[in-house]
Amino acid sequence: MHVIVPKKSLAEGLTHIERIIPTRSSNPGLSLVRIELGESGLICSGSNLDIDIEATIPAEVTGIGEIALPVQVFGQIVRALPGDQVSLQFTERELAIESGSYATKLQLSELAAPRVIFPARYGGELRGSDLAAALAKVRYAVAIAEYQAVFRGVKLEFGQASPRGGTRAVASDGFRLAYYHLAEATGLTGAVVLASRSVDELIKLLGEDEVKLELTDTQLSVSTGRFRLNLKLMEGSFPDYQRVIPSQFDLHLTLDAKGLAEAVSRVALLADKTANNRVDFFINQGHLQITAEGTYGRSQETLAVVHEGPELQMALAYNAKYLVDALQPIQGKARLSLSGRTSPSVLLSLEDPGYLAMVVPLRTA
Amino acid sequence: MHVIVPKKSLAEGLTHIERIIPTRSSNPGLSLVRIELGESGLICSGSNLDIDIEATIPAEVTGIGEIALPVQVFGQIVRALPGDQVSLQFTERELAIESGSYATKLQLSELAAPRVIFPARYGGELRGSDLAAALAKVRYAVAIAEYQAVFRGVKLEFGQASPRGGTRAVASDGFRLAYYHLAEATGLTGAVVLASRSVDELIKLLGEDEVKLELTDTQLSVSTGRFRLNLKLMEGSFPDYQRVIPSQFDLHLTLDAKGLAEAVSRVALLADKTANNRVDFFINQGHLQITAEGTYGRSQETLAVVHEGPELQMALAYNAKYLVDALQPIQGKARLSLSGRTSPSVLLSLEDPGYLAMVVPLRTA
Repeated sequence: MHVIVPKKSLAEGLTHIERIIPTRSSNPGLSLVRIELGESGLICSGSNLDIDIEATIPAEVTGIGEIALPVQVFGQIVRALPGDQVSLQFTERELAIESGSYATKLQLSELAAPRVIFPARYGGELRGSDLAAALAKVRYAVAIAEYQAVFRGVKLEFGQASPRGGTRAVASDGFRLAYYHLAEATGLTGAVVLASRSVDELIKLLGEDEVKLELTDTQLSVSTGRFRLNLKLMEGSFPDYQRVIPSQFDLHLTLDAKGLAEAVSRVALLADKTANNRVDFFINQGHLQITAEGTYGRSQETLAVVHEGPELQMALAYNAKYLVDALQPIQGKARLSLSGRTSPSVLLSLEDPGYLAMVVPLRTA
Repeated sequence: MHVIVPKKSLAEGLTHIERIIPTRSSNPGLSLVRIELGESGLICSGSNLDIDIEATIPAEVTGIGEIALPVQVFGQIVRALPGDQVSLQFTERELAIESGSYATKLQLSELAAPRVIFPARYGGELRGSDLAAALAKVRYAVAIAEYQAVFRGVKLEFGQASPRGGTRAVASDGFRLAYYHLAEATGLTGAVVLASRSVDELIKLLGEDEVKLELTDTQLSVSTGRFRLNLKLMEGSFPDYQRVIPSQFDLHLTLDAKGLAEAVSRVALLADKTANNRVDFFINQGHLQITAEGTYGRSQETLAVVHEGPELQMALAYNAKYLVDALQPIQGKARLSLSGRTSPSVLLSLEDPGYLAMVVPLRTA
């Protein structure tokens, strides 16, 4: 069995697989990459049990067969090779790698790599960059604490399972929520929750290519470009978040998102880290005054804002980090809608109707 | 007391001071920056007992006086300020900072910041970029282990204290050694050892400006641009390294430094990390064959080299990391001079006569 393959595409495929396959595992077979030689080239695959991944790498292949190798060593060697082309020669026990002046013989593993199976057909389709943007813009709101269960994932709603149809990514940790709504439908119907680790890998893999999607009770399967993934679904159901997003407000502010995020960050440098990083907002007829106070002193900054009623004045407080996180995905102007301390505030992007963030104000005396 | 100061120069000065001043210390005064208001501007200073630092920042100052502030909070605020200019207004208890739309009041510390004293005159002078290059090129060879005492610093030799006069930086961990020799003399005579932490700070501070130097029994004082530093000397004396550098060799190789470093790194991917990362060299009439063997298999690469006798063949082994580290400072061609397994090998740069590295081969069966 002999293979000639461009270094660049082999290295790229292995890099994505290496990120997923564990370096060490109580099951040593899990740290292996399976390489199948077929007519279309090399098919490299692996799994960490939560994510299965496969990369098809076009190559000149003589012979057929299949081997298993420790993925990390193989990946490091391929990235370091001096030539543009790589020659792989398989014998029963060894893989001989040659490139330029370099040659190596890697022992093949006697263990079997996990066998991963992908759907024969995909029922849904979406632009890769749209799905990546939707996931990336809500990722920050995912819960971190172990006990927060399903909040530690991002919910994906397809078709009729989403309030306005289309496709929606939602994340929340109970104190804040973000969603990104795509008008584009996939053809699938249903809602799933993906673990944040799976979301991160998916964002890294998605490009401009179309993404094909397929849903079962236990996994979301994704096929894009040379890669196929199965992403294990999180168990448990996401609460009805739509019900807690207010639609009536007492006051709206329109202001530059970046300017507000910078001002809040600056003022919060003096906020008390042990008291929720509290910053106070006082809105008074077109002016937003932001203040904070802590061990080292106090700080304030006043921004001119476009202010719409009915209320002329309002005082409330936020965790500065939550507000800054919620502002990051917004380019240009943001609209902040408020009803005081006891009702969640909502942030929208004036330029991008897909994004909504909700932040619960701090309950203050 | 009122000060108007450009944000950029204040932020830059504080950044260097913040790196040195500890965030937390059993002596809380040590985490403070002292700010003196004088005719020439703000003089900011601090110390971690091993390094004293002072930055003079040109500013419009009304009044004189001196205060102490927690340096980290002050530095964070200054870097985040929205305006190009900063107004500082000192009262007995507070510092009011204003810039653009932002205002803060920081409580002054009731503790005293350490008072640092710099020499009235400096007896030596050198180009900052030359001193930085000499230190940076040997820094890798400094010992890491606690018990290696004075080897954990870089030796600086001035004038007659250096084998060829001029100025020399030397580092060694007992298994390898590097020196960088500047023909330029400072006017000082003597040899000192600076802790690696002090060397790192010095490299970051030095620019194209002239550096003024002064030496006492306990410290090296450095004045460059707006900064002054006292660097505490390490105790103990560096062994006579010059004696262990061979001057006669059985074989010389001339080859591209970057190409050799890459080949050694590549081959070493299969080396056994628990056996000194061993790579074997076999030189045979103009060819250098590099090989390694470990748990996963074996690898080899052959480079064509310019080979000068008297020996036509030689076999020896190195710790791959030591060889790669020693090659990094060399641009272009390197000359590697060898006398087999029992004598240190020496690396020179053909383009830069200042650099010399010595690597002890592995004692192999």
